[in-house]
Amino acid sequence: MSISEESLDAHRSWAGKLDTTPKMDIRTRYDLAVAYTPGVAAPCVAISENPDDVYTYTMKGNTVAVVTDGSAVLGLGNIGPEAALPVMEGKCALFKTFANVNAFPICLDTQDTDEIIRACTQIAPVFGGINLEDISAPRCFEIEERLNDLLDIPVFHDDQHGTAIVVLSALINSLRLVGKEAQDARVVISGAGAAGIAIAKLLLSYGFEHIIMCSSRGIVSSKTEGINDAQRAMLEFTNLDDMSGTLADALVGADIFIGVSAPGIVTRAMVESMSKDAIVFAMANPVPEIYPEDALAAGAVVVGTGRSDFPNQVNNVIAFPGIFKGALEAHAERITNDMKLASARALASLVSDEELAPDFVMPDPFDPRVADAVAKAVSACVDSSRD
Amino acid sequence: MSISEESLDAHRSWAGKLDTTPKMDIRTRYDLAVAYTPGVAAPCVAISENPDDVYTYTMKGNTVAVVTDGSAVLGLGNIGPEAALPVMEGKCALFKTFANVNAFPICLDTQDTDEIIRACTQIAPVFGGINLEDISAPRCFEIEERLNDLLDIPVFHDDQHGTAIVVLSALINSLRLVGKEAQDARVVISGAGAAGIAIAKLLLSYGFEHIIMCSSRGIVSSKTEGINDAQRAMLEFTNLDDMSGTLADALVGADIFIGVSAPGIVTRAMVESMSKDAIVFAMANPVPEIYPEDALAAGAVVVGTGRSDFPNQVNNVIAFPGIFKGALEAHAERITNDMKLASARALASLVSDEELAPDFVMPDPFDPRVADAVAKAVSACVDSSRD
Repeated sequence: MSISEESLDAHRSWAGKLDTTPKMDIRTRYDLAVAYTPGVAAPCVAISENPDDVYTYTMKGNTVAVVTDGSAVLGLGNIGPEAALPVMEGKCALFKTFANVNAFPICLDTQDTDEIIRACTQIAPVFGGINLEDISAPRCFEIEERLNDLLDIPVFHDDQHGTAIVVLSALINSLRLVGKEAQDARVVISGAGAAGIAIAKLLLSYGFEHIIMCSSRGIVSSKTEGINDAQRAMLEFTNLDDMSGTLADALVGADIFIGVSAPGIVTRAMVESMSKDAIVFAMANPVPEIYPEDALAAGAVVVGTGRSDFPNQVNNVIAFPGIFKGALEAHAERITNDMKLASARALASLVSDEELAPDFVMPDPFDPRVADAVAKAVSACVDSSRD
Repeated sequence: MSISEESLDAHRSWAGKLDTTPKMDIRTRYDLAVAYTPGVAAPCVAISENPDDVYTYTMKGNTVAVVTDGSAVLGLGNIGPEAALPVMEGKCALFKTFANVNAFPICLDTQDTDEIIRACTQIAPVFGGINLEDISAPRCFEIEERLNDLLDIPVFHDDQHGTAIVVLSALINSLRLVGKEAQDARVVISGAGAAGIAIAKLLLSYGFEHIIMCSSRGIVSSKTEGINDAQRAMLEFTNLDDMSGTLADALVGADIFIGVSAPGIVTRAMVESMSKDAIVFAMANPVPEIYPEDALAAGAVVVGTGRSDFPNQVNNVIAFPGIFKGALEAHAERITNDMKLASARALASLVSDEELAPDFVMPDPFDPRVADAVAKAVSACVDSSRD
């Protein structure tokens, strides 16, 4: 049976991947009186008198909304809120499995930026954080930014920042392995959408200095036609020589290729043109920009993809559960850039010198230390900012 | 320790009454691939091609939103969405405990009718039904009505209809006990808000013909000052003699008193003025319109309250879990009046002739037959309407 058939069967038998489970038994009138009326009036009054008590007496402090409008689901595109629900339920299941964070899917029947923002602010009282998921660019930028300004809980677009954090952690260890420094490394990012831009921003803030972004039109430069505002803003910090040309041109002499773009667009010859000890993360799904065997044959030393059937899978599940766990525990009001950097460093540090190898630059998703290490890194940022 | 202190302590230790629990273990990369990417694409595609498949592959078919704006919480009033959360979590816990229906609290940070309606339609994709809770009158009427028109899932304001169903079930058995007929019985309802009006409507549709409603201004008649639209509409079917006067005037010779109003407003003398074998349901919380010992001393035969420490507790928990269970199982698009009547009859019939007694006119909330009996009654209405 294919994985698709297996998954369809499993989803049919589950009929929903999440249960909402009471934490207490309600077997007697007394149980009812404590968990519900009349006893429940006491925490209600406490919260109405002291709003912060909502974190003491309710689920808010450990509950995340996984919010989508269904506009950019997996590689499937704009399939709408109902069809997006299996992904969102899955994401919620991962939150609980990997970090014991409660999460609930909110699939919005609107794709209007203002309405998405309004809906999120209206449902916010129950949630300690909002994970935006599979919302198309460029609206995802505005939605995240405005919600973080409007709300006192963290709002985090995982497709952008989760990916960026995991990529940075992989690069930290890849550079450690080949003995290069971030500020000297020449980086080419293929894909100038939400994920590509988020990766570029995080790498810049970490200390990378030489980044070129490519879109389907080639190198993004001041002369690129149809460039959007977000891409234009990146030109202040990337492609500083305002180089023009193709992806192949960009890759000549590059140290690192990061692909969040399209299947099969990188050839062996292009990898061969990169510098010695090249690092290739080809994350287009399900077919990468170049298959690992080809990249390795062309001289790349570290190769990763988005797939679970090759080494070095770039999988957000090592980041987002711990990030929210840490943010919730510390009552963070937003996920700052420092938290993202600290998360990437924490993830990288979980791979010991003995373990570090070309086919092992990131911790295993099932390594039980992962979520706590990330959570600790995140909450330490909150604590230090309050000192 | 008082129940309030007990409840505060319990709520602090729970830190939220609900967990969102995955139905499957995710322990291997293969588990991840089936429950999440890449396998999850298969049910997503199936739903995008056939929208009804959302009931096959997701949680929608067994998940209810418990929606409030925090405007009329318990007896506490307008305490807002955060302070309402302990009640909503409790309601969700009851859904799961009593009918194995998943439920999630949605506490909206708006009290504008249009915005509440819009928010509910936007979050609807994830839910198979919406339970409106603790929303103040008269906006609750319009919200429920318009949402039922806009959505293809049932929307049910439990404070109105749940209460009405349980009261009707209690009256069916009370009349059975004292040997009176509904069409002959003279009913006085104290409280002309959402619950009072819903009770009156359901009793009328069951076959009661003589109903007088009273508000804090006395008997509701065409001469009542400050009467609202909902109350005026009821005059077509209630108080047919257009009687004026006080609650005491209305009760002279009445067979049934139903109180959803204010503490202590019914005296012994008022009950003494009622007809022989009077039935008194004094449901103001926590202090009833008259205490059971006083009502009984004044000659009432069947007496109930909203409290768990007296016999005949009118408790919505015997109705709403089964109502949604039945509606979800049958994919009902709304909760019809026939379903409400069938639910009340099903509840009444669970009390056998041997069990029926002045202090036992409704089934015990913990009677394991309750939810299934109600669910069966509800789904039978859907099936018969489709024949």
